[in-house]
Amino acid sequence: MTSEGALLNRIRKAVLSDGGRKAGCVRLGIGDDAAILKPRRGRELILSSDFLIEGVHFLSADPPNAIGYKALARAVSDLAAMGAEPIGFLLNLAMPSARTGAWLDKFLKGMDQAARKFRIPLIGGDLSENEKVAVCVVVLGDVLSGRAIQRSGARPGDLIYVSGKLGAARLGLEISLKRFDKRRDARSLLAPHLYPSPRLKLGSWLARHRVATAMMDISDGLSIDLARLCESSHVGAVVYADCIPEARIPEPWRRRLRLSPAAEMDFALNGGDDYELVFTVPERRVKELKRAPSGVRLTCIGEVTRKRELLLVNSAGQESLLQIHGWDHFRRR
Amino acid sequence: MTSEGALLNRIRKAVLSDGGRKAGCVRLGIGDDAAILKPRRGRELILSSDFLIEGVHFLSADPPNAIGYKALARAVSDLAAMGAEPIGFLLNLAMPSARTGAWLDKFLKGMDQAARKFRIPLIGGDLSENEKVAVCVVVLGDVLSGRAIQRSGARPGDLIYVSGKLGAARLGLEISLKRFDKRRDARSLLAPHLYPSPRLKLGSWLARHRVATAMMDISDGLSIDLARLCESSHVGAVVYADCIPEARIPEPWRRRLRLSPAAEMDFALNGGDDYELVFTVPERRVKELKRAPSGVRLTCIGEVTRKRELLLVNSAGQESLLQIHGWDHFRRR
Repeated sequence: MTSEGALLNRIRKAVLSDGGRKAGCVRLGIGDDAAILKPRRGRELILSSDFLIEGVHFLSADPPNAIGYKALARAVSDLAAMGAEPIGFLLNLAMPSARTGAWLDKFLKGMDQAARKFRIPLIGGDLSENEKVAVCVVVLGDVLSGRAIQRSGARPGDLIYVSGKLGAARLGLEISLKRFDKRRDARSLLAPHLYPSPRLKLGSWLARHRVATAMMDISDGLSIDLARLCESSHVGAVVYADCIPEARIPEPWRRRLRLSPAAEMDFALNGGDDYELVFTVPERRVKELKRAPSGVRLTCIGEVTRKRELLLVNSAGQESLLQIHGWDHFRRR
Repeated sequence: MTSEGALLNRIRKAVLSDGGRKAGCVRLGIGDDAAILKPRRGRELILSSDFLIEGVHFLSADPPNAIGYKALARAVSDLAAMGAEPIGFLLNLAMPSARTGAWLDKFLKGMDQAARKFRIPLIGGDLSENEKVAVCVVVLGDVLSGRAIQRSGARPGDLIYVSGKLGAARLGLEISLKRFDKRRDARSLLAPHLYPSPRLKLGSWLARHRVATAMMDISDGLSIDLARLCESSHVGAVVYADCIPEARIPEPWRRRLRLSPAAEMDFALNGGDDYELVFTVPERRVKELKRAPSGVRLTCIGEVTRKRELLLVNSAGQESLLQIHGWDHFRRR
């Protein structure tokens, strides 16, 4: 059996943990009672944290590399959602002794991949034994003072945009749950579920240029997350079904997974874990979106309304109340 | 069953969550994707996090009030250990639906008590379902730039001090484990275990006046924590057994718990959860300790040495290597 100190050293070596020091922001990283950070002038700090628990947020059989990657990626997505740039993260890791060998090495490798990709060094955390794996990742970032994009700034008449395609993570989850994840042709479809890409560049661009009035990341599903944004902003929304950028389900997979023709729309509206951004833009600022960072598709899906309800308009032009079916931990479907 | 949004509202109402805003540091608290903080000029930030897991850090039967209190208190102790002042905290709470009723109310009441006592508002976090309670508390504080007290600054010749009495929390734990915790005469002995008092005032005073060269909090036991401090500072230490401020074990309790006459010294050296401070002071600065905040006993227990080993000197003047038996999650006793 290994000791806590030895484990800590392994973690420190395996995961990017000095990147921020060079940036002048992290004065003291992992290893003391706490991390010390020197704030950059003219900037505000953004702090958030997220659980990733075995049997709740991931399956015991999921690849450990992906679990490590995703634990960090989904926390980083909260920084993207505020328009912030990453500074550092804390890793709180509870796990059984039996997993401190090869499993942990793979987990840390995945986390290191994410840390390098998002340029966010490990600066501290806590270790504990536990009968199953529970990860709590804390992310710290910063943003120009006053430029963080909150959920509460949407105004009637603003247009509603989403980044990327929606529902792809849910398709990957279905493939995992139905045990098709070892198939070679499943690999690319599993990626959005296992290795999500939070939209850091887009988020910080929108904040820097003050283009968006409100923003959040889509972690529980477009329907519930848009409802949260509207509630914070005391507004409503109308969403056009035809405009929603659904991720396509290849026909052989639709048959294999026994999915209905409506699955694409269901996954796009109610699937979680996409980590795309939903944001609102005043009409006169829309043309500026042309200069947004390349490589990510932006789609206008509707409009903010004064009336506090969420409407979905179908291709025949018929309106109905948008059904909210996203992920809620304490109200299980 | 309750929904996540409703739970969040209950938490927000039950726990101090606006105190920091008034202080001008917290720009946006709980409820968005992340908290926004405006750093104070000339100060550095201190960030730390701690798990508190059912069956690992506390017993299922422990009073929920105490669990809520302690989850925050032990994280705040990491701020004290750096000499920092509290700004705000994140609560990550995973729990079974069955505990979202009266149990949660009591848990939040205890957490609110701690939040008010240490003047640290709730500014965010994450909720999740889980088959048992797992809490991860993240604390953010600040300290005058360059004044944070690290573990690594101890120099040969410095005197070693501890605050308060040591081993009291361990006595409380033994009383709990042996199910004597419902006895009326156990109450005051349980308090150090259930309601620890991190030394925020003392820590920040030591930092402000640059009196201590190195410091940490005693969370896993004096022997292991002093070893960690010495390792970080590349020094050794000699500790005088007679000087260690042991918490006294009342005789009836010694018999009831079947404890040996050496239990006091064992608990003081190796019991965890005391959350007192251990710190080092250059000899010429010792007289300044007279002006330290009142209400906490400070005891010199030994001296920092060049030779990198930890020695214990008994009352007969005999030296032996200090046995290290503190709490280590991955090397169970």
